[in-house]
Amino acid sequence: MRVAFQDELDSISQSLLTMLGLVRQAMNDATKSLLEADLALAEKVIKDDVNIDAIQHDLDARTINLIARQQPVAADLRSLVSTLRIAADLERMGDLAHHIAKQARMRYPNKTVPVELVEIISDMGKTSDRLIDKLSSVMEHRDAQRALELEKDDDELDILHRKLIGALLADSWNYGVEPAIDMTLLGRYYERCGDHAVSIARRIYFLVTGEFSNHNA
Amino acid sequence: MRVAFQDELDSISQSLLTMLGLVRQAMNDATKSLLEADLALAEKVIKDDVNIDAIQHDLDARTINLIARQQPVAADLRSLVSTLRIAADLERMGDLAHHIAKQARMRYPNKTVPVELVEIISDMGKTSDRLIDKLSSVMEHRDAQRALELEKDDDELDILHRKLIGALLADSWNYGVEPAIDMTLLGRYYERCGDHAVSIARRIYFLVTGEFSNHNA
Repeated sequence: MRVAFQDELDSISQSLLTMLGLVRQAMNDATKSLLEADLALAEKVIKDDVNIDAIQHDLDARTINLIARQQPVAADLRSLVSTLRIAADLERMGDLAHHIAKQARMRYPNKTVPVELVEIISDMGKTSDRLIDKLSSVMEHRDAQRALELEKDDDELDILHRKLIGALLADSWNYGVEPAIDMTLLGRYYERCGDHAVSIARRIYFLVTGEFSNHNA
Repeated sequence: MRVAFQDELDSISQSLLTMLGLVRQAMNDATKSLLEADLALAEKVIKDDVNIDAIQHDLDARTINLIARQQPVAADLRSLVSTLRIAADLERMGDLAHHIAKQARMRYPNKTVPVELVEIISDMGKTSDRLIDKLSSVMEHRDAQRALELEKDDDELDILHRKLIGALLADSWNYGVEPAIDMTLLGRYYERCGDHAVSIARRIYFLVTGEFSNHNA
């Protein structure tokens, strides 16, 4: 019984990693579609979001089924409840990639991002990718130390976000209101993606150490 | 055993309603602080958000504890898992009220909302309040029929949101970029608040009927 339970836990952890891999791809493709006004790629991200949602549904069903059949307590139960929450965070990260891709599609054939802001958005994309890459290692190895590092990476994302808003408010901003609205929303999407990654890292930190890394955990 | 279990389930449902009451108050106070540039009220919403977070922590602990002790299956287990998710949605709605209040505080003593947009924001606040009021009745009476109505109320919120963006893009918009950024974010906060209310209503619909009200449920 115990072996079967552990096998199912492992299989669920593996599905979470698969889901994170799809989210990572979606975020990277979304950023690329945005910066290069690549309509086909944007459409792909938008279409493929259902795959991420489907894994979440499947994971939720398997997790609840496992709780019902095995009636775990203590650490095992906490771990399974965390699975449900991590899957929800990942699903939401997929939604944010979807939002970014929709922004790219909405302005096609024009580019959404003014040339002066390409570097900041590109950096936000790269920082998000670094967060997700590190999160993957945190999830796979239950690495509490690396989980803490995500907070710092997320601070970088916040700095980029403030830089972005600063550029919209500078005297040199000549693009008017509509691109400012687009960029405000895009900045928010990347920022929220980072928040969800940090939220997952905090859950894993708690599962491993039994302590909160932060009062918001 | 069964009676004690039902008592605890009832007590958990009651705490969710208490949490929703606090969220409703926070949203209404946040809108008022925003429209009237009421710093004290904004500070209150910002400060009181910890109370909403505290109820969520307590609810989560009680729910997980109940699963561990009573080892429910089928409908009871699904209901308890939904509790965890509904509490997470409510906590996030509290965060959004907190964000709105912070926006009010940031621009104080000025008013964040230009006079031309007061009506739209006021309507978004009222529509959110109607959603939350209806949600309260859905949660209390497990009313699947009213749960469906929330989708329509949320459509109204979306219409107001589009009207808001339209106003920012109109030739008559004379306030420049900074207030446009503020209003874009505010619009997003109200919209997300509505999304979370709908998400909770869908969960309850599913618990009551065993069917999804929508493919996104």
